[in-house]
Amino acid sequence: MASRQIPRMKSVTAIYPGSFDPVTNGHLDLIARGARIFDRLVVAVLQNLDKEPLFPATERVQMLREVTSEWPNVEVDLFDGLLVDYVRRQNAQVILRGIRAISDYEYELQMALMNRRLEPSVETVFMMPAERYSYLSSRLVREVAKLGGNIEGLVPAPVVERLRAKIL
Amino acid sequence: MASRQIPRMKSVTAIYPGSFDPVTNGHLDLIARGARIFDRLVVAVLQNLDKEPLFPATERVQMLREVTSEWPNVEVDLFDGLLVDYVRRQNAQVILRGIRAISDYEYELQMALMNRRLEPSVETVFMMPAERYSYLSSRLVREVAKLGGNIEGLVPAPVVERLRAKIL
Amino acid sequence: MASRQIPRMKSVTAIYPGSFDPVTNGHLDLIARGARIFDRLVVAVLQNLDKEPLFPATERVQMLREVTSEWPNVEVDLFDGLLVDYVRRQNAQVILRGIRAISDYEYELQMALMNRRLEPSVETVFMMPAERYSYLSSRLVREVAKLGGNIEGLVPAPVVERLRAKIL
Amino acid sequence: MASRQIPRMKSVTAIYPGSFDPVTNGHLDLIARGARIFDRLVVAVLQNLDKEPLFPATERVQMLREVTSEWPNVEVDLFDGLLVDYVRRQNAQVILRGIRAISDYEYELQMALMNRRLEPSVETVFMMPAERYSYLSSRLVREVAKLGGNIEGLVPAPVVERLRAKIL
Amino acid sequence: MASRQIPRMKSVTAIYPGSFDPVTNGHLDLIARGARIFDRLVVAVLQNLDKEPLFPATERVQMLREVTSEWPNVEVDLFDGLLVDYVRRQNAQVILRGIRAISDYEYELQMALMNRRLEPSVETVFMMPAERYSYLSSRLVREVAKLGGNIEGLVPAPVVERLRAKIL
Amino acid sequence: MASRQIPRMKSVTAIYPGSFDPVTNGHLDLIARGARIFDRLVVAVLQNLDKEPLFPATERVQMLREVTSEWPNVEVDLFDGLLVDYVRRQNAQVILRGIRAISDYEYELQMALMNRRLEPSVETVFMMPAERYSYLSSRLVREVAKLGGNIEGLVPAPVVERLRAKIL
Repeated sequence: MASRQIPRMKSVTAIYPGSFDPVTNGHLDLIARGARIFDRLVVAVLQNLDKEPLFPATERVQMLREVTSEWPNVEVDLFDGLLVDYVRRQNAQVILRGIRAISDYEYELQMALMNRRLEPSVETVFMMPAERYSYLSSRLVREVAKLGGNIEGLVPAPVVERLRAKIL
Repeated sequence: MASRQIPRMKSVTAIYPGSFDPVTNGHLDLIARGARIFDRLVVAVLQNLDKEPLFPATERVQMLREVTSEWPNVEVDLFDGLLVDYVRRQNAQVILRGIRAISDYEYELQMALMNRRLEPSVETVFMMPAERYSYLSSRLVREVAKLGGNIEGLVPAPVVERLRAKIL
Repeated sequence: MASRQIPRMKSVTAIYPGSFDPVTNGHLDLIARGARIFDRLVVAVLQNLDKEPLFPATERVQMLREVTSEWPNVEVDLFDGLLVDYVRRQNAQVILRGIRAISDYEYELQMALMNRRLEPSVETVFMMPAERYSYLSSRLVREVAKLGGNIEGLVPAPVVERLRAKIL
Repeated sequence: MASRQIPRMKSVTAIYPGSFDPVTNGHLDLIARGARIFDRLVVAVLQNLDKEPLFPATERVQMLREVTSEWPNVEVDLFDGLLVDYVRRQNAQVILRGIRAISDYEYELQMALMNRRLEPSVETVFMMPAERYSYLSSRLVREVAKLGGNIEGLVPAPVVERLRAKIL
Repeated sequence: MASRQIPRMKSVTAIYPGSFDPVTNGHLDLIARGARIFDRLVVAVLQNLDKEPLFPATERVQMLREVTSEWPNVEVDLFDGLLVDYVRRQNAQVILRGIRAISDYEYELQMALMNRRLEPSVETVFMMPAERYSYLSSRLVREVAKLGGNIEGLVPAPVVERLRAKIL
Repeated sequence: MASRQIPRMKSVTAIYPGSFDPVTNGHLDLIARGARIFDRLVVAVLQNLDKEPLFPATERVQMLREVTSEWPNVEVDLFDGLLVDYVRRQNAQVILRGIRAISDYEYELQMALMNRRLEPSVETVFMMPAERYSYLSSRLVREVAKLGGNIEGLVPAPVVERLRAKIL
């Protein structure tokens, strides 16, 4: 390969949006992966959900801050409204999403194409969590917790405590 | 969001591997998207294919260089052997892959998990080409060209010429 | 091919059922395609939806009539109850459905098989909207509109106005 | 619904392309369904296959003519080259395809989008065979026949005879 | 194959969980298949559903007992709480699930992996109902019944009566 | 639940067919799961493959016997011809198949339905390997081995040796 001069470095900010009700080890795995690739990674917690969340938005943010404190380039923030508007306000170039199942993928593709139409300069980038988290979702964790199942290893330790306290 | 000091910038190299027999407008669209996000993007042309390629490896590289010359941070290279070995030799952190159809996605996921097992430090990152290229593949372009169909708009202009010359 | 006498022409009526809350450019694209193939195409608006619709049934019909007036063989109608009963009442032979994503496809297949069982003489026929509408759905349009996103190009112009009026 | 004058009838020709090596009861089921909807249905047998077929093209046509003779508006023809060119030569408006499995669907979608690009005036229309044929394919029938399995009920009676003669 | 001594027989209990609101002919088909393979098959009716069921749990159990009385190794039971806890209490080794559509499959896989994590000694085993029931679901049956469609052949005869009585 | 008398135990034989070229840790994981549920599990190695196998049939059998010797109720055998004929000769009631990806699933479903048609008394039963093997296939293992990648942990230790010997 012909050598070329090293190109000027870019500073890339990625937004990782979600409801994180609560953050799971699958989310955390993806954050770790994203933090290694992007200069700045903003975990953006959707404030107003369609359904009543188990944890209020501020608590979801607090838990995320607690469990992501080891990465200096990861921030946690609240957002509301159109995702691409938030991405623009953050001067971000990338929306980061995890994909696991096929059904995820379809929904994600649809959202990514709509977001591209609403803001063509923003790219959606997909990464895979570790396969041992392939079946994890916040919804499933909430259900297992409600039925008294053991959620250790599914969510970070501080979330285990809060989930138990919330449900009992 | 609490302001933090801007983190130290990373220099991220992504490898975009494929056979590119020949490069299509879908590939080019993905290269353009990757070039905006990664500091350095190496389009890595797989030298030895299972089947006899339509274009020899050097011509596939030559066409790619021609059509990617506008991006200073895009390089084109040949590779052979295990992809993750090549990624390591390039000091790259990312394998870039395009996803479109579900069947793509399954194969891509399988390869990405295997590559992660062979080299855990490398991440596979997926991006979507423009939806108007969602049905494009090198194989389909070769078939249409062989049957005399119009391939303008499916591959870059210099490739149109070469494809016609090759097939007539 | 051995020439045969031209067979007697059939008059085929197709029913295109949906909730159309509101009609999108994807629906309109499919109506245009169906109108070219079927002698008579009835856009059948489902009156009673599971959820409270954004637009009442009569307004959904009115919008559809407005944007389909250019096709002389397209009619717009309200229906309720079992789809195959409506199809029979219309002396129709075909149910027309658009397919885009895989998840669509599965649901559509299930409904088509059930409808075939309920009325074996009716065929469900699938067509694809233009790929630039592959990510469009009424639900997504409503969400984008509610969050203040630009919906021009996603729905016909008269619907843009009504959506804005409805949401503000 | 406001009554309108009955629109002028269209004469719609549909092409049902395939390799039919050999025709199965699933194909026949789809032909029966298509014959009820389209004024003229041309079963178009692809002459040159990538692999050596079990039955030569003329025998595939002959078997199809034999088993479709009951439908006056069904013709059987050979074709080669680009499908949309053949469709144009036949003054057809529709390509008819059967869909069953998801993997079918993906491939079919890709081909349909490519054909639409090559010839925007032609529509691909999908119909479902009866679910009892959902697992049938010519390839699977050939395999079962080669291994001595009972193929009655999988292919039309005259094809059973020919398959046995061919394989013994 | 080298002959070995016949291994000691196992007594395997399988749990077939569901909401069965109401039991369909697809469920019954799967019960028949499971009863032939497992020594003991417990149809486990989930007591508390997210939504208000059409039939109360006791009536769902009663209908199941009525239509499964011919199989001596099939029992019907109510359960609540975490499925794997119930499986343990029953000294069962297997969770039996039917799979039909792809979307089923994804959800089933996710649940099976979660259940495996919660109780590694329990295996989920998938079987297919007859393809003529591939489009059947309790939800679809309820909808068809509510709209006045003919549900004979979709659910066992005693359920037809009860559904009609319930809906009128 | 009303207590019933314990039903008479069945002796169930399951056939686990495949080419096993070579056996992977994913296959082994599935064999372990099957051996816990079925009284007798016959791993049936398909003798004649469409393509030239890497390992001859006798060596594939030998490797399987070596790595399954710990399970007294697991046998390894060669077979050829129609699978259901072999199943009948073995007096087996069950065909065991692993499912992982969606594409697997579709092919497996098709084969299972065809096998059910050829022999209605035989049931195909699906189980999932551990998710850490979800990306494993014999083909992928062969490819990685050929390219010099590390295959430890992907196949049983004795197979690692043989694969290396075979490829060097």
